[in-house]
Amino acid sequence: VARVTATALEGIPELRAGDDLAALLVAAMPSEPPPIPSDVLVLAHKAVSKVEGRTRALSTVRPGDRAQALAAELGKDPRHVQVVLDETREIRRAANGILISVTHHGFVCANAGVDASNAPDDTVILLPLDPDRSARELRARLGELLGVAPAVLITDSFGRAWRHGQSDVAIGCAGLAPLEDWRGRTDSRGRTLRATWIAVADELAAAADLARTKDAGQPAVLISGAGRHVTAEDGPGAAALLRDDATDLFR
Amino acid sequence: VARVTATALEGIPELRAGDDLAALLVAAMPSEPPPIPSDVLVLAHKAVSKVEGRTRALSTVRPGDRAQALAAELGKDPRHVQVVLDETREIRRAANGILISVTHHGFVCANAGVDASNAPDDTVILLPLDPDRSARELRARLGELLGVAPAVLITDSFGRAWRHGQSDVAIGCAGLAPLEDWRGRTDSRGRTLRATWIAVADELAAAADLARTKDAGQPAVLISGAGRHVTAEDGPGAAALLRDDATDLFR
Repeated sequence: VARVTATALEGIPELRAGDDLAALLVAAMPSEPPPIPSDVLVLAHKAVSKVEGRTRALSTVRPGDRAQALAAELGKDPRHVQVVLDETREIRRAANGILISVTHHGFVCANAGVDASNAPDDTVILLPLDPDRSARELRARLGELLGVAPAVLITDSFGRAWRHGQSDVAIGCAGLAPLEDWRGRTDSRGRTLRATWIAVADELAAAADLARTKDAGQPAVLISGAGRHVTAEDGPGAAALLRDDATDLFR
Repeated sequence: VARVTATALEGIPELRAGDDLAALLVAAMPSEPPPIPSDVLVLAHKAVSKVEGRTRALSTVRPGDRAQALAAELGKDPRHVQVVLDETREIRRAANGILISVTHHGFVCANAGVDASNAPDDTVILLPLDPDRSARELRARLGELLGVAPAVLITDSFGRAWRHGQSDVAIGCAGLAPLEDWRGRTDSRGRTLRATWIAVADELAAAADLARTKDAGQPAVLISGAGRHVTAEDGPGAAALLRDDATDLFR
């Protein structure tokens, strides 16, 4: 039977800079069934950012002129806007209290992924500097501790063009083929397939999000049954999902 | 334990116009555990379109001038382009062999969802005329046959802005809250949440897609563990996911 199961890990404590996240994840993993190499461990990026110290205390931020002007226009805290600008390669839009940024990684998202929720007071959480590297390092450490290394996927909640609401997407991964390529393959009758390049990493991120609630402190979800997308090598990471503006017909 | 499971249904035959899809789905459902009202039955739209007769034989299509011109520009079959135009409210882009359409329903997708794969020769498959109505009708019929009515979700694979690859999204649903609204709610420490309006229907569509392979004739997936999004009433449908251009900062 083709079956995919996403299970939220419980009992992960509040995380701080320098914590051994892999060890905390291993402690939270079910013993029955034990994790196997074809599993995918999905992490909300906040867990990773916190242990990596990718946070900023707003009290230490001096907003510049541009941040002050944007903050006045949008009705936001100028210090928060300054942090967003620091994480941004290019601002695409500024309206309705939201900045749409292209981050230094190339992700297009609201407020460059800078997040004040689930953070200690006065502190905002940034995206990891290099989420693919974070995923690779976490996978290696899990391999040391467990003997087996599941794939690792790091996610964030992004808004989308054309459609309301946010969906979780991949911002980093290791041990996972982020796109399943059926281009050139055909269906059971030999015809060209319509959906031929499937964003598996984003679908896994979305599936994981269903298994947890936003306020329950469940940053980690273990997915089983998706082993055909798991690879021994770390692979290209979620950077492979980034689309050039020039080829983007959906904007 | 918070756990979501997606299981592909097996043994669904090739579908034809007029088939009782609900009866075929019931026959394919597992007896153990039996389906319960908190389950979500996810269907690739092709299954629905076929039984509803939402197909066209290209041999009966007379391409008009605009279809001929676009087909020459894009290197496509002019009859196929005519069908796309018939399903389109507005063409947004035409490049790289792809038309980006706004469908009559308001969906933004490649080729208005018109699909030649997994269809009998010379036939293309259209999106259902009203996928939310299709979902409601199917849910009612499942209720008659099963005694319980799971939520019904109808999906298609859409490309996205900014990101490579396609992901399955919701085009119709019944018995499901398509968006989970946390706006105004706070996290465990009383702070505003960043992701506050979650496109649950799209995340369910993505999760279901992981449980099947594109060439295995598995149009239906049963999801359990997502009961908190299931509603007794049919609800607003996937139409609630459509975003006005005016408020869309992500384009």
